[in-house]
Amino acid sequence: MNLEKLSQWLIDTDNDFAYISDPISIAYFTGYSMDPHERIFALLAFKDQAPFIFAPELNVEEAKNSAWDGDVYGYLDHQDPWQKIADLVKKHVSNPQKAAIEKSFLSVERLEELRRVFPSVDFSGNVSPFIAKSRLIKTPEEVEQLKAAGAEADFAFQIGFNALRNGVTERYVAGQIDYQLKLQKGVMHTSFETIVQAGTNAANPHLGPTMNKIEPNELVLFDLGTMHNGYASDSSRTVAYGTPTEKEKEIYEIDREAQQAAIDAAKPGMTAGELDAIARDIITKAGYGEYFIHRLGHGIGMNVHEFPQIMEGNDVVLEEGMCFSIEPGIYIPNVAGVRIEDCGVVTKNGFETFTHTDKELKYIPVKD
Amino acid sequence: MNLEKLSQWLIDTDNDFAYISDPISIAYFTGYSMDPHERIFALLAFKDQAPFIFAPELNVEEAKNSAWDGDVYGYLDHQDPWQKIADLVKKHVSNPQKAAIEKSFLSVERLEELRRVFPSVDFSGNVSPFIAKSRLIKTPEEVEQLKAAGAEADFAFQIGFNALRNGVTERYVAGQIDYQLKLQKGVMHTSFETIVQAGTNAANPHLGPTMNKIEPNELVLFDLGTMHNGYASDSSRTVAYGTPTEKEKEIYEIDREAQQAAIDAAKPGMTAGELDAIARDIITKAGYGEYFIHRLGHGIGMNVHEFPQIMEGNDVVLEEGMCFSIEPGIYIPNVAGVRIEDCGVVTKNGFETFTHTDKELKYIPVKD
Repeated sequence: MNLEKLSQWLIDTDNDFAYISDPISIAYFTGYSMDPHERIFALLAFKDQAPFIFAPELNVEEAKNSAWDGDVYGYLDHQDPWQKIADLVKKHVSNPQKAAIEKSFLSVERLEELRRVFPSVDFSGNVSPFIAKSRLIKTPEEVEQLKAAGAEADFAFQIGFNALRNGVTERYVAGQIDYQLKLQKGVMHTSFETIVQAGTNAANPHLGPTMNKIEPNELVLFDLGTMHNGYASDSSRTVAYGTPTEKEKEIYEIDREAQQAAIDAAKPGMTAGELDAIARDIITKAGYGEYFIHRLGHGIGMNVHEFPQIMEGNDVVLEEGMCFSIEPGIYIPNVAGVRIEDCGVVTKNGFETFTHTDKELKYIPVKD
Repeated sequence: MNLEKLSQWLIDTDNDFAYISDPISIAYFTGYSMDPHERIFALLAFKDQAPFIFAPELNVEEAKNSAWDGDVYGYLDHQDPWQKIADLVKKHVSNPQKAAIEKSFLSVERLEELRRVFPSVDFSGNVSPFIAKSRLIKTPEEVEQLKAAGAEADFAFQIGFNALRNGVTERYVAGQIDYQLKLQKGVMHTSFETIVQAGTNAANPHLGPTMNKIEPNELVLFDLGTMHNGYASDSSRTVAYGTPTEKEKEIYEIDREAQQAAIDAAKPGMTAGELDAIARDIITKAGYGEYFIHRLGHGIGMNVHEFPQIMEGNDVVLEEGMCFSIEPGIYIPNVAGVRIEDCGVVTKNGFETFTHTDKELKYIPVKD
């Protein structure tokens, strides 16, 4: 169905073909998922001809045995893939005039290669916004995958909480999470590097887990996610290992209030910017606005970060089926950091989260 | 020193500035390594002004505390990063006319953003070939990192060989490798998804590890690598679990002969294509040429795949300090697959490998 819409888009925009090369987009349209590294991998789509996959010869068998039931053409390393693509396209459209590329993905160099082998084609068409828009509203089947990925994230938190003890490193805790996900849940890929940050490290959002040791009486921030059948989860929890300070408890409760307020408010008809403001205002009024240094959230789906961006100034109107994170954070340099994050889907009247790990401040007893 | 050469290149090519955005390139020039996901992250370099890093506000503290001692500027999610970049650049060069981008990395969309905020700048300069060429010859310090990464790969093979037993899945074996690398060697990132392929699965190069179970009397192919201080390893071994067939032994020995011949032959002055031919001729003469469906090797460094490509038709002349893989493979669909791979460095008179795991066919006793 997605491919039919793509053909219709080509007709509507009068593009003779589309060159689609983001592996996630290719997976979205074909069901075949692959990382080509530096090699050439593309889906060629047409107005009224069957689309085909073009891949390194190494992957042709795999593609033919995948969910994709269309044609697959390959090239060998010493061959010019661009000339092969041009020859194949011309078998579908004898005299192409206009074509669309994924401007958000395609490199300038590869566009120059396309222009070299299609000297008379106008490549000004941009199929990226159409694909982003198609992917913006998730089907019920996609939401099921996202919920399943969320359940894996909930499992991962329990592993992480249980792994906390004096003297183990952040990396050890992250390693335990990844290993148990693999062993117990068959999760081969996390959706990003599992983050475990203790104490002041948590004030640096997105700092990877370090060799610093977990010590008693500090907050520990977890940010993690898995890939489940090509769909991502992404969730954060902050817990107390031992007894936190009053200041830490205070910022935790403010962050939790802000996160819950946004979850409760999210529904169709409001804008992304309005939703961001609901959480941000609570943190700002409590005096910590300057420490909330990122957007409230990001879309999630086949990519861990996609549209819509839940941020100030974004006038996108929320619709049923949009999926995104709600993740306010308060980061006070050299003091502590808190982030609480759930992803979820906009429902008919509200917002349903994919992760359910409790958000009341969890106190984990100190262990040797 | 790399940054000085970059400034000299800007002078030589008369570009007022370079916009460098591949995170690996940024790490190469600055020592600061980060994955910005979809956010904007760049190194701006000039003819005779100090370069600066532009990053999401989230990462500014981290960048300032990194090996990089130059300026770092940030932007918040709701701000226009492109306008900020333009304002910052104009503080360094009042009236820029020409600029260079990384054409091999920069997306068409982001080039359009640069053109929007620098309407009078000519962005036809391409700094990618200069960076690729700089990175082509490794310094002794870089070779040390590559050797250390290779030692981790050798360790990983031992873990993998020891994990083979009846009924465990390929994924389980891959998971053991990743976990023990993390636990025993502190390896947080493999350089690509660890590959374990048993029996006919190995005939599909680059197929990820499946849930298929290891069974007695088949070849098992391992392809794995780690990241060590930003430098990659990549190595393959194929072992016999139980007793292989005569055919399997035959293709193993042909592949080993081809690989060793290429390692013995590699030295400064020959071309990449000539080196490919040395291994390929041996496999072709033995009657298996059609089953060696990829190039002989690829460069390695901060990326697991980089230049030079060791393949037919590549006239690049090998020089001391170039680092690449030598990895002939024979893949017979529905029968078996063999690949033996070492990365190494071209020395004054030859080629020194980074991995040393024995290549005589290893027989692993069947275990329940």
